[in-house]
Parts: sequence; structure tokens; C-alpha cells
Amino acid sequence: MQKQVEYSDAIKTKYPEQVVIVIAKDKNGKVNPVTLGWTMIVSGNPPMMAIAVAKKHYSIEAISYSRCFTICYPSSEMADETLFFGSKSGRDTDKFAECKCNAQPAEKIDSVLLSDAVANFECLLDSQAEAGDHIIFIAKIVCSHMNTEPKKRLYTTAPGHKLGTAS
Amino acid sequence: MQKQVEYSDAIKTKYPEQVVIVIAKDKNGKVNPVTLGWTMIVSGNPPMMAIAVAKKHYSIEAISYSRCFTICYPSSEMADETLFFGSKSGRDTDKFAECKCNAQPAEKIDSVLLSDAVANFECLLDSQAEAGDHIIFIAKIVCSHMNTEPKKRLYTTAPGHKLGTAS
Repeated sequence: MQKQVEYSDAIKTKYPEQVVIVIAKDKNGKVNPVTLGWTMIVSGNPPMMAIAVAKKHYSIEAISYSRCFTICYPSSEMADETLFFGSKSGRDTDKFAECKCNAQPAEKIDSVLLSDAVANFECLLDSQAEAGDHIIFIAKIVCSHMNTEPKKRLYTTAPGHKLGTAS
Repeated sequence: MQKQVEYSDAIKTKYPEQVVIVIAKDKNGKVNPVTLGWTMIVSGNPPMMAIAVAKKHYSIEAISYSRCFTICYPSSEMADETLFFGSKSGRDTDKFAECKCNAQPAEKIDSVLLSDAVANFECLLDSQAEAGDHIIFIAKIVCSHMNTEPKKRLYTTAPGHKLGTAS
């Protein structure tokens, strides 16, 4: 049976929710990673994905400048860097330099891949749309990578940024 | 270590992926449900969600006509109707009439809620964007409901529309 409730209560049923790390270089060439839960595939042919980024986030500037970014699926072993990238701002921190995670250059865009991730998708910005307090970036995937070892994806499993596996 | 692979291989790492049932009435008043995996929250204030619907799907017509829809989080007990709504077209089937699932009128939009779902969100279409072979519908949530009983959300857990829980 359904009961009408506040959105803030109903949305607590969303878990587990996938987590991605999105990486774009800013105008100074600084690699700026951010952790996002709001992402989806949006096209099969061509392959495309979308992300929603809070308007106040520094990543808006970085993505708008470089017009390309990596979408990484962090593995269940990457909870520390995933939390770190989601809790600091690239406006006053070099998050990528502070966090010693393994990375390598992307193949087809000017960004980096996270070597220990489950998968990495290189994305070229196609369009964007405004949605309330966020900007939706819609991008074509131009190159895909996956880990040579089997890894489990990381999810937010409960409120308060509780991370874990989901299967 | 990352290895460059085809997108079709890399994207197999996406599971578990959330499932929603989106319901919009068509121009004849027929209740048209469709199962989607491509959805995300896109704004916190105001609360907004987005869905990506294949251009060939009948739901494009229904949503474009009524400009409102329900996003339901099906429960783990709703695998049968979730598969059914995702495997038939509303163009030549009255999916909702054929499937005896419990429903009730929405409160603030001209649509229905699924009574056994984990949660239901009533959405007013705000804007839309094109993305390859899909249309992204971006909507404001104007009313929220959740089940009075604790329920688990349904996820696609593996390729081939394998459904199950994810925690």
C-alpha cells in the first residue's frame, strides 16, 4: 500500500545507487576528479552517457572548459579515494595530486583513466541541459577500457555516503 | 590494469543496474507502463529526475502527449510485471489491462501509482534533450509515495534481463 510522504523520505528507497568518478582537466591542466551518483546510460548506438553535476561544483568549470571527461566505475577497493574525491572541491585542492591513486593517460581524449577501476569510459561532450540545481552533461563514449582482473563496482548502499558492493 | 575493449564488453560491468517502471497515459487515456534501466536523479532542490526512452518506443508518444508520468521503483516481488512491461509495446497492446497489478490514481498528475512498488514519484515534464537513439525526459517531482511495508528495490543483475535484489 502506498502512503504519500515527503520526497526526502521516499528517495531513501533508492539504495543501492551506483557511484562513478568523473575526471576532467581544468583550464590550467589540473586533473579534477569528482564523485557522482547521478549518472545513466542514454544511448546504445552511438554509446552515450549522461551525468548530473551540481551547479556549484568546480567540475562544471573543468568540463565546460575541456569538453571531455572520463567516467570511471570505481571498484569496491576504491572506497577511500571515492569518498575523498566526493568530499573536497577542486577549486582549492589538487585532489588528484593529494590522492595517490594509480592512473594512466586516456587514449582518445585529454584526460586520465583510473588504473584500478572496474571500467573507464572516455567521453566527448555532446550537449548539456539545465535541471534545477544541476547541469546534465550528455556525452558520446569514444573509447572504453576495463580491468584485466574481475572487480566489483562500488555503490552507495545507505544514506551518509556509506559505500560497499551491491551483489 | 586497464585494457582497451569494445564498449559492448566494458558496459557489462554496469550491473546491478536499477530498474524503474514509467507510466504515462496516451492520447486515448490508455495507461502505458514501460520498464527502463536508464534513469537518474538530476536535482535536489527542486527534486527532479530524468529518464532515457528509446526513440522507437510508444512511451515517447504517451509522455509527449500527457507531459507527466509516474516513476515507480518496482519491488523485488514485481519481477513478472517488470519483465512484461519491458517486453511488449503499448502501440499494439494494452499492457496495463493485461497485467493484473495493483494500481491507484496519482494525486497530482493524470497517471497511476503501482500500489505494491517500493516508491512512486509523480513527475511533471520540464524539458527534454536528444541523445543518440534515445530522448531524455527531465521532470519535476510534484508528489512522492512509498510503501507502508519495507520492500526491496528490483535491479537488473546480469545481461539478459536477469532481475533480482542488490543488497
